[in-house]
Amino acid sequence: MKKGCPFGTHRVIEPQGVLPQPANRIDNDMAIYDNEILIDVQTLNIDSASFTQIKEEAGGNIEKIKAIMKKIVETKGKHQNPVTGSGGMLIGRVEKIGPALEGKCPLKVGDKIATLVSLSLTPLKIDEIHEVRKDIDQVDIQGKAILFESGIYAVIPEDLPENLALSVLDVAGAPAQTAKLVKPGDTVMVIGGAGKSGMLCLYEAKKRAGITGKVICLTHSEKSIKRVQEAQLADEYIVADATNAVEVMEKVKRVTDGQMADIVINCVNVPNTEMASILAAKDDGLIYFFSMATNFTKAALGAEGVGRDTTMIMGNGYTKGHAEIALQIMRESEPLRKVYEELYA
Amino acid sequence: MKKGCPFGTHRVIEPQGVLPQPANRIDNDMAIYDNEILIDVQTLNIDSASFTQIKEEAGGNIEKIKAIMKKIVETKGKHQNPVTGSGGMLIGRVEKIGPALEGKCPLKVGDKIATLVSLSLTPLKIDEIHEVRKDIDQVDIQGKAILFESGIYAVIPEDLPENLALSVLDVAGAPAQTAKLVKPGDTVMVIGGAGKSGMLCLYEAKKRAGITGKVICLTHSEKSIKRVQEAQLADEYIVADATNAVEVMEKVKRVTDGQMADIVINCVNVPNTEMASILAAKDDGLIYFFSMATNFTKAALGAEGVGRDTTMIMGNGYTKGHAEIALQIMRESEPLRKVYEELYA
Ligand SMILES: NC(=O)c1ccc[n+]([C@@H]2O[C@H](COP(=O)([O-])OP(=O)(O)OC[C@H]3O[C@@H](n4cnc5c(N)ncnc54)[C@H](OP(=O)(O)O)[C@@H]3O)[C@@H](O)[C@H]2O)c1
Ligand SMILES: NC(=O)c1ccc[n+]([C@@H]2O[C@H](COP(=O)([O-])OP(=O)(O)OC[C@H]3O[C@@H](n4cnc5c(N)ncnc54)[C@H](OP(=O)(O)O)[C@@H]3O)[C@@H](O)[C@H]2O)c1
Repeated sequence: MKKGCPFGTHRVIEPQGVLPQPANRIDNDMAIYDNEILIDVQTLNIDSASFTQIKEEAGGNIEKIKAIMKKIVETKGKHQNPVTGSGGMLIGRVEKIGPALEGKCPLKVGDKIATLVSLSLTPLKIDEIHEVRKDIDQVDIQGKAILFESGIYAVIPEDLPENLALSVLDVAGAPAQTAKLVKPGDTVMVIGGAGKSGMLCLYEAKKRAGITGKVICLTHSEKSIKRVQEAQLADEYIVADATNAVEVMEKVKRVTDGQMADIVINCVNVPNTEMASILAAKDDGLIYFFSMATNFTKAALGAEGVGRDTTMIMGNGYTKGHAEIALQIMRESEPLRKVYEELYA
Repeated sequence: MKKGCPFGTHRVIEPQGVLPQPANRIDNDMAIYDNEILIDVQTLNIDSASFTQIKEEAGGNIEKIKAIMKKIVETKGKHQNPVTGSGGMLIGRVEKIGPALEGKCPLKVGDKIATLVSLSLTPLKIDEIHEVRKDIDQVDIQGKAILFESGIYAVIPEDLPENLALSVLDVAGAPAQTAKLVKPGDTVMVIGGAGKSGMLCLYEAKKRAGITGKVICLTHSEKSIKRVQEAQLADEYIVADATNAVEVMEKVKRVTDGQMADIVINCVNVPNTEMASILAAKDDGLIYFFSMATNFTKAALGAEGVGRDTTMIMGNGYTKGHAEIALQIMRESEPLRKVYEELYA
């Protein structure tokens, strides 16, 4: 059996020297290397940007969607949309575990897992497409995939509905990082606190900041702030446009008696909110940018422009134990679980 | 006298509600508000990307360069290049200090300072352009500028040549952050360690990591690694292409006995080096991205894609005391000062 690199570089066909994600084509032969896991795939969760593009290209026709998806995998060895560059994730059962992983990896054959690394780097073979669920970006297939040694995954819990687990796992990095960053007594502000990742962050922030802390939720619409208020996820609620830095600063000043936030967590899905995040934080505060719409230069030059010594952390989607931390919230919080079941599951 | 906002929003003319930097036009009337500082400007240091564009547009003609610069300031009230969006910095003497700053600001009238906030947000008036020094992006003028309350600056030291001080101040954030992040015993790797910011980071890293630590310098060319070796700035030297993540990882593995770096400081001036930075760091390591070529999404998804729990910090150009820390290096290190005088002053 061949020995593999932990990152899967042994599967890169073209161009040589890069990692599987930026590669144009990877080897999707389903004979595993010694440190790989073979997965019997059940469902592909296509990234929303990617699936929207495919649907448009197919004019909504199911058979055309299937053909486009098959073509992508045949050409690239992975389901990486050539237009959007993005992937998604998959669910399946462990079929084979490479011998080099024995004792290192807690999985066993038959476990049902969700891969938490992108499909844009995962070797995949589609034998047949059974069903396309257009409205929720899910596609049931018969096929196989490979998980690399460095690839992250979560075992699907028995006690939670599968779709609920999936939607929570999608944003698991945010609440787990919140849990690690927030200390008792902190004033924490979540920008975009009514969203899928934002609500989980609010919950963790309140738990960690405790009775001596203060948790502030900022969202754009009155409608979504109501949802968060009903679930009692924060101590203070602000409705504001996060692209308006001055408005946000003034409102945060009011609810913090001019002290501002120790930690700002940015969970919005729109660009140009870097400056509001910076001005909402204390001078020696910390900002965690989970939003993928964050622009590096705007944040770096923005903080310098107003002479702020803020620490700004880029939202790595992964942190140890992130799946467990995020799923646990669904068990602990009755009201939050209700909201998630209604909205996302 | 009118009361001003610390960030200068009172000077924004168009569009309303934004900060001075993203504004299209700001008020450059030189009657100061109560919390502003009036500067008698001596020299503008135009940002290199901006000046290159202006020179090209002017076909290298000095009078045309002058005309373009004057036009920018007349239109926008600040020297923000409409093509590149960038500014630069300025040197001048303090002419007036707003009464609200009394006791708060250590400056006195007559002090010679360099502003460390961008010209892209600084109200400026040019009366005359005396000299354009095309090769070093400097322009001597007669004119005035305004520094906001939140604006950062450095007093030009008496004991260092002005151009030396300026080139060090340009990248002062990087060594100051290095000084704050590195602890005794750390293995620190500086990617782009032979550059203007990189060498200062190496010096601070060696000082803080101490005899039990290890400092690694990575650059692209054999030529520049020699310069760093002669000045003895690091413990280990690597020549590699930082856009090749796998090559970098293998070479760092070799010089760290497979341990990898506790802290990676990215000071390159080219894109696509996020992945090399991630793979060079330990799983629980820290990466400081000072390079403005850093892409947020590539870093965030890159770390997730290889299952790394790395903390990634965005290089805020400012941190408390950054000017003092950076200038002090020029006093402490004879060999480094020689290199800087040769290359940049
Ligand atoms: N770093 C990673 O690994 C990773 C992984 C997954 C997702 N993400 C990113 O995380 C972000 C959030 O994802 P999500 O699924 O939680 O999004 P979401 O459910 O769509 O929530 C977005 C939130 O942002 C708020 N918002 C939108 N525009 C706003 C504005 N102008 N001012 C104030 N608030 C505004 C929304 O408020 P209203 O409800 O009031 O409109 C909502 O609360 C996305 O950018 C996504 O790309 C990152
Ligand atoms: N965050 C902030 O506030 C702030 C402020 C100022 C500057 N910056 C940024 O800091 C960065 C560095 O500035 P600088 O003035 O120090 O730059 P610099 O003097 O031009 O140095 C660049 C360094 O990168 C190395 N390099 C270039 N391509 C490489 C590659 N493919 N592989 C390995 N090394 C490579 C060069 O190596 P060789 O010498 O061998 O070619 C050199 O050592 C820039 O991106 C700049 O925008 C940020």
